Amino acid sequence: MNIVTPTIKNLIDIWLKEDIGRGDLTQSAIKNKIVCAHWISKTNGFFCGGSLVESIYKTLDKSVQVTLHKPDGARISSDEKIVELRGPVFALLAGERTALNIAMHLSGIVTATNKLVLELKGTKVRLADTRKTTPGLRDLEKYAVKCGGGVNHRLGLDDAAMLKENHIAWGNGIPEAIENLRKNIPWTTKIIVEAETKEQAIEAVLAGVDGVLLDEMQPYEVLALTTQLRGLDKGSSKTVIIEASGISPQDIKQYASTGVDIISTSAPITQSKWMDFSMRFTEKSTC
Amino acid sequence: MNIVTPTIKNLIDIWLKEDIGRGDLTQSAIKNKIVCAHWISKTNGFFCGGSLVESIYKTLDKSVQVTLHKPDGARISSDEKIVELRGPVFALLAGERTALNIAMHLSGIVTATNKLVLELKGTKVRLADTRKTTPGLRDLEKYAVKCGGGVNHRLGLDDAAMLKENHIAWGNGIPEAIENLRKNIPWTTKIIVEAETKEQAIEAVLAGVDGVLLDEMQPYEVLALTTQLRGLDKGSSKTVIIEASGISPQDIKQYASTGVDIISTSAPITQSKWMDFSMRFTEKSTC
Amino acid sequence: MNIVTPTIKNLIDIWLKEDIGRGDLTQSAIKNKIVCAHWISKTNGFFCGGSLVESIYKTLDKSVQVTLHKPDGARISSDEKIVELRGPVFALLAGERTALNIAMHLSGIVTATNKLVLELKGTKVRLADTRKTTPGLRDLEKYAVKCGGGVNHRLGLDDAAMLKENHIAWGNGIPEAIENLRKNIPWTTKIIVEAETKEQAIEAVLAGVDGVLLDEMQPYEVLALTTQLRGLDKGSSKTVIIEASGISPQDIKQYASTGVDIISTSAPITQSKWMDFSMRFTEKSTC
Amino acid sequence: MNIVTPTIKNLIDIWLKEDIGRGDLTQSAIKNKIVCAHWISKTNGFFCGGSLVESIYKTLDKSVQVTLHKPDGARISSDEKIVELRGPVFALLAGERTALNIAMHLSGIVTATNKLVLELKGTKVRLADTRKTTPGLRDLEKYAVKCGGGVNHRLGLDDAAMLKENHIAWGNGIPEAIENLRKNIPWTTKIIVEAETKEQAIEAVLAGVDGVLLDEMQPYEVLALTTQLRGLDKGSSKTVIIEASGISPQDIKQYASTGVDIISTSAPITQSKWMDFSMRFTEKSTC
Amino acid sequence: MNIVTPTIKNLIDIWLKEDIGRGDLTQSAIKNKIVCAHWISKTNGFFCGGSLVESIYKTLDKSVQVTLHKPDGARISSDEKIVELRGPVFALLAGERTALNIAMHLSGIVTATNKLVLELKGTKVRLADTRKTTPGLRDLEKYAVKCGGGVNHRLGLDDAAMLKENHIAWGNGIPEAIENLRKNIPWTTKIIVEAETKEQAIEAVLAGVDGVLLDEMQPYEVLALTTQLRGLDKGSSKTVIIEASGISPQDIKQYASTGVDIISTSAPITQSKWMDFSMRFTEKSTC
Amino acid sequence: MNIVTPTIKNLIDIWLKEDIGRGDLTQSAIKNKIVCAHWISKTNGFFCGGSLVESIYKTLDKSVQVTLHKPDGARISSDEKIVELRGPVFALLAGERTALNIAMHLSGIVTATNKLVLELKGTKVRLADTRKTTPGLRDLEKYAVKCGGGVNHRLGLDDAAMLKENHIAWGNGIPEAIENLRKNIPWTTKIIVEAETKEQAIEAVLAGVDGVLLDEMQPYEVLALTTQLRGLDKGSSKTVIIEASGISPQDIKQYASTGVDIISTSAPITQSKWMDFSMRFTEKSTC
Repeated sequence: MNIVTPTIKNLIDIWLKEDIGRGDLTQSAIKNKIVCAHWISKTNGFFCGGSLVESIYKTLDKSVQVTLHKPDGARISSDEKIVELRGPVFALLAGERTALNIAMHLSGIVTATNKLVLELKGTKVRLADTRKTTPGLRDLEKYAVKCGGGVNHRLGLDDAAMLKENHIAWGNGIPEAIENLRKNIPWTTKIIVEAETKEQAIEAVLAGVDGVLLDEMQPYEVLALTTQLRGLDKGSSKTVIIEASGISPQDIKQYASTGVDIISTSAPITQSKWMDFSMRFTEKSTC
Repeated sequence: MNIVTPTIKNLIDIWLKEDIGRGDLTQSAIKNKIVCAHWISKTNGFFCGGSLVESIYKTLDKSVQVTLHKPDGARISSDEKIVELRGPVFALLAGERTALNIAMHLSGIVTATNKLVLELKGTKVRLADTRKTTPGLRDLEKYAVKCGGGVNHRLGLDDAAMLKENHIAWGNGIPEAIENLRKNIPWTTKIIVEAETKEQAIEAVLAGVDGVLLDEMQPYEVLALTTQLRGLDKGSSKTVIIEASGISPQDIKQYASTGVDIISTSAPITQSKWMDFSMRFTEKSTC
Repeated sequence: MNIVTPTIKNLIDIWLKEDIGRGDLTQSAIKNKIVCAHWISKTNGFFCGGSLVESIYKTLDKSVQVTLHKPDGARISSDEKIVELRGPVFALLAGERTALNIAMHLSGIVTATNKLVLELKGTKVRLADTRKTTPGLRDLEKYAVKCGGGVNHRLGLDDAAMLKENHIAWGNGIPEAIENLRKNIPWTTKIIVEAETKEQAIEAVLAGVDGVLLDEMQPYEVLALTTQLRGLDKGSSKTVIIEASGISPQDIKQYASTGVDIISTSAPITQSKWMDFSMRFTEKSTC
Repeated sequence: MNIVTPTIKNLIDIWLKEDIGRGDLTQSAIKNKIVCAHWISKTNGFFCGGSLVESIYKTLDKSVQVTLHKPDGARISSDEKIVELRGPVFALLAGERTALNIAMHLSGIVTATNKLVLELKGTKVRLADTRKTTPGLRDLEKYAVKCGGGVNHRLGLDDAAMLKENHIAWGNGIPEAIENLRKNIPWTTKIIVEAETKEQAIEAVLAGVDGVLLDEMQPYEVLALTTQLRGLDKGSSKTVIIEASGISPQDIKQYASTGVDIISTSAPITQSKWMDFSMRFTEKSTC
Repeated sequence: MNIVTPTIKNLIDIWLKEDIGRGDLTQSAIKNKIVCAHWISKTNGFFCGGSLVESIYKTLDKSVQVTLHKPDGARISSDEKIVELRGPVFALLAGERTALNIAMHLSGIVTATNKLVLELKGTKVRLADTRKTTPGLRDLEKYAVKCGGGVNHRLGLDDAAMLKENHIAWGNGIPEAIENLRKNIPWTTKIIVEAETKEQAIEAVLAGVDGVLLDEMQPYEVLALTTQLRGLDKGSSKTVIIEASGISPQDIKQYASTGVDIISTSAPITQSKWMDFSMRFTEKSTC
Repeated sequence: MNIVTPTIKNLIDIWLKEDIGRGDLTQSAIKNKIVCAHWISKTNGFFCGGSLVESIYKTLDKSVQVTLHKPDGARISSDEKIVELRGPVFALLAGERTALNIAMHLSGIVTATNKLVLELKGTKVRLADTRKTTPGLRDLEKYAVKCGGGVNHRLGLDDAAMLKENHIAWGNGIPEAIENLRKNIPWTTKIIVEAETKEQAIEAVLAGVDGVLLDEMQPYEVLALTTQLRGLDKGSSKTVIIEASGISPQDIKQYASTGVDIISTSAPITQSKWMDFSMRFTEKSTC
């Protein structure tokens, strides 16, 4: 999927303004000329952000050539060449930090996601993210989770209707809330309920929701409840999707065998560290 | 639902710039003073756009007071007062055309939608819109369809995954396309297939899609196929949603009894006329 | 005239964000590759929007090639090829709806304008639009009216100074209002008066306005008044322009022989229906 | 006229970002508290920019109170209080330079305009500006010219159609160019010709233009030509407007008695100096 | 310092669009009413982001009241109330995730910074950040480092001129590079050299730079070199600032006694985890 | 240095919208075709703005070719060719005024700066600008000062921390204010004090500031004080920078021999006149 949407193009402009501001002062110390450079990683991990690197540099200066050696989601080894660049040194330096920063951040998320996805290996359970994402980077961080083998939860308040504790508390119960939604939201949109209790989960499934989140329940509770919910829903070609949410990443394996379809966690985004990449210049005319 | 989202606030700025440009030249002909005004409709119909009128005027001048006599979706009679305004005449005139234009356009859509929805009265079938909307006004025109008793189809390319003729033709068949989507799209997102043939529709339902569009089929074909699709899907608490699409508005009644859940048409947006409202000024100090 | 001004380029960005949002989900179902496509019309009519189609696609992806078979304003027959496209399928699909929507909307306005202009054939009377335009599309809709053989009225509150009922009521009469304007507006700007009565029209012409609108008067009134106004203004190389406004489109012929220069109506914009175009894909390598 | 249009509001945001950037560093040196301040002028002259000062401060912090002692266009004496401010010192300092800069620049233009307008006293000739304006400040600089007693020429390429040397050279003569324009531009828009020769001026007036510019001609040529042009145009209630353009400001008096309506010069904008204002703080609680 | 600069106000608009998109779908499930809510932390740590929370909510709806119980940089205990909110539930929910996300992210940085700053306790050495920051959040993440007791390095390429390895390699040595800079950059701007070797560091100090970075050197090297550099610079009231850069956070104590002024590390930004806050609603009328 | 930063690219869009608005009306009078043009100056002086001219035209139409005959800062003689252009006449005309205006304005500043810099010839004193710049043009006007041989003062409130009269009055003296700054501003940022009195200057230098401004003092006072300040600071490799500010441009020579490093004045920006350039078209096919 092409991630450099019109919205992301606007963000790239903002990122470049943020770092370049009134202009790169050190351009006065040197002469502009064509040089080559490449990126290497200082540790093993997984890569993400190639098309952004390309778009950042093309936004700065169309003459910069970017060669991506690794697709998004690929495993990278320490010291391996990831990206090669050729162009005016003024542009290569002016875009360096912005391009590295976004790629290092996203690659950190992919690497963290891969680790958790590995714990689910051999099961049919999938790892999902949440709406706990860095403001301004939602779409890209969620893209990184996908590159790491995860699946996305809804992307915003307008992308699936999700009833939470307070929506339920303030209304006249789950069935009426769902009925209200059905009248008002696009028919192409899923309805999901975040259940704090067994009773809410059952009520939601009986009301025909598309998915139910079992929030902050113990693995044994999730196991029992999932079995019960599947029973309510049997015979259908299109079963309700059951997600365990509010899970600590270290408990993921315990939930993997409870029969849920999805385990969600914000950890790959909120608890991960950046990968560490470095840009090396070479002055050879042939590069 | 609060329709004046941050995105819509930006549009209001653009609309005002469009009409006001370098400034209202006629302000030089008169003195600014506080006046009152109200809107009346020249014909019967339905109203839409109240919160936009309010937001347009508040954007221009916070001191303008807007009183809405009719909620969005309400029936209005010829000569009935719809909106009342009080504030500096410079602001009232500078916002007049923009506020009237958007409300007259959206009210036209509500009125046209109501007419078609009436034809479905007594059935469980709902009327849906399409992505044929005026560029820049998608969310608002779809809101007007809802106010008119319709239901929205997806709001953009990112809001439900819909396989169309060409997605099917270019891949290895519907099941593989769906499998690819399931791996890549949020689990909270529905998958829909637009079927040109009976075979495609059956294949889609067997693959467990959330919805199927029967495109440009005759009413008798839709009736037969819907029955067959319901059979494939039976026993489920959560049945596949079946939509008849590519329908002329005049044929709507014939499709209403085919057993489909939804009939979609772009007509209330692409074939409707604006309502005609007029703003009348009064100079009384008490208004 | 080049209609893709810097302002319109911004709108194109907004339109694309509106439809694409967080990205076209169905891109995950297929592989990207170069394909060809063309547009055909489903009915006879007139075309408008070619340079917008080109600019929309170039904004999305510079490699898309757009060939326009019809200039803006040209007559098109049902099933005729209007536009041909060649490029990555991801781009062709991502821009499809936006490009079609704006062209279908504008082509509908051209077609409606042509119909009314035909009624004025054989006279010297020209058809003009009004400021009743869809918010965000003013310049483009007015361009469509021109393509259909009409002439534009002022484009915004800053484009010609037009005294209306309330400007007159709140001041000390037309001559003083005009004097105030002359002192304050650019000398390159016309002054126009919308007259509700015969007396106002006469007063305006005697005050030397550039144009006078005879608003909501009967054809016989317009005929008599126009004759009288021409008398006041005789001998001038540069006569006052007289417009009949507030006219129903069905009455246009009755006003055509009253001697006015211009008949204005919002109908081609507020009462017209979209044309219906369709985009067909072909996979042949030679296209 | 309200000059703080939606377009100007955007500029104010840009100006504030320009000066404040990542934040006023000196805020760390002091504590925020409510203070008072006022502006005085260091020389005699004329003031302009009051509503901008107000809008700049309100944009920064709604609690700042701005009292304007002088309307735009008013004469100011050295050491006279022009503006008073009350609010948080952080806001007063953060907006100080931006507010002073725009007001000092515009006041310089008003003062320069007044001087030239004085030279035309006793005649009916008016002083006009040109499109030679500082990029980003066109509307405001032209507003300052008006405040100084001048009249504006067109505000942009879309505001009056003006045929210049090259338009004439590249076409088939003035009459055809005008005919093309009349077909395509709004009927509410004036047509003007910039004439380099006597012949062009005559041709333009005979073709019924609204205005003619006599460009870079000697005063005696302008005198003779104006008389001739008035003759061609006689009997009209609405005579062609004649402008002398390409005039050095020092020659203005010589052109004042040639019979032209308008003399245009870019000098008040391109050759003027800023006024010099100073902001003085007072810490008294009652201010 | 007021961190909600005009630039940050724009970012808040972007963040809200990102999460709210076409509107919060669940608003259809409930009725709008005034409610109260508060934030508590799930763990001990330090808080940051109060004025952003306030600005996010005021941007959404001016009627929301935000009470900050903790200033930025304050220690917070698990379960302590941090923020209280009162306002329409539609606004409270629509801003919840954006406000929490930015505050949790920044609070994580403050907490991580505090930990490292603690290791420097008892020394005069200060902890600095780098330009490795999340694209779009540079100013805010650096603000969080300050709230945690750190000091900022330059904020962008335009904020201090810093010669790095390649600037030196591509020119004619450090002295010439510095001379070029002095001619071209503002005199108010510092010049800094990142030295990879002892020789470069000495050369830079002799050339009178304002600061020198000793990059990726061992603690014993830094100790020796710092002593030598202080010798070159002695007698000055204003000594060169020496920074150890390229330091792993775990080695910070070893560098603390080398005599450097500053130790810089990207760790509080690139290696930290978010704090975990939760928003709790209460429906009591008195809150 | 590349001055067309992402921020300046945005300004160029705004400038073009300002002049082109709803479109160049005169395009209707002529046919589009490829033509050539060049710029000549009407007087001797210095040029500035070449890369802006290029960027303005490329923004309008990528096919326009711009050849710069003079680098920024170069001396130009009357009637010398400065710039050559080749491209569609619609683009050449639509960009003409914007490109000329910015270049004429900046060239005026370069020319005025050169004149003042000449007065300092033979001394080591440098000429600096101030924050008195035209809103929206700060970076470009300061760039012009550099092209004219001057040096820039800080570019905004965030670029160097400068304590002024009121910062000192409202705090507990200069040393405490500086201590507060050191804790809070980046260590890479200079601290400067604007001294109104001899005592303040001494206090500032003793507190180790990077620069001190002697504001509105007589030449003999500056001479005596500078000698004294140098004494306080002696022995340092990196001496405090002393600036004379609040100077009238005519007094510059008197201050040139006082021993200060810098003399600042806003005159080249606030008191300068535009250069006068003209664009000449040629229709030859070979150009």
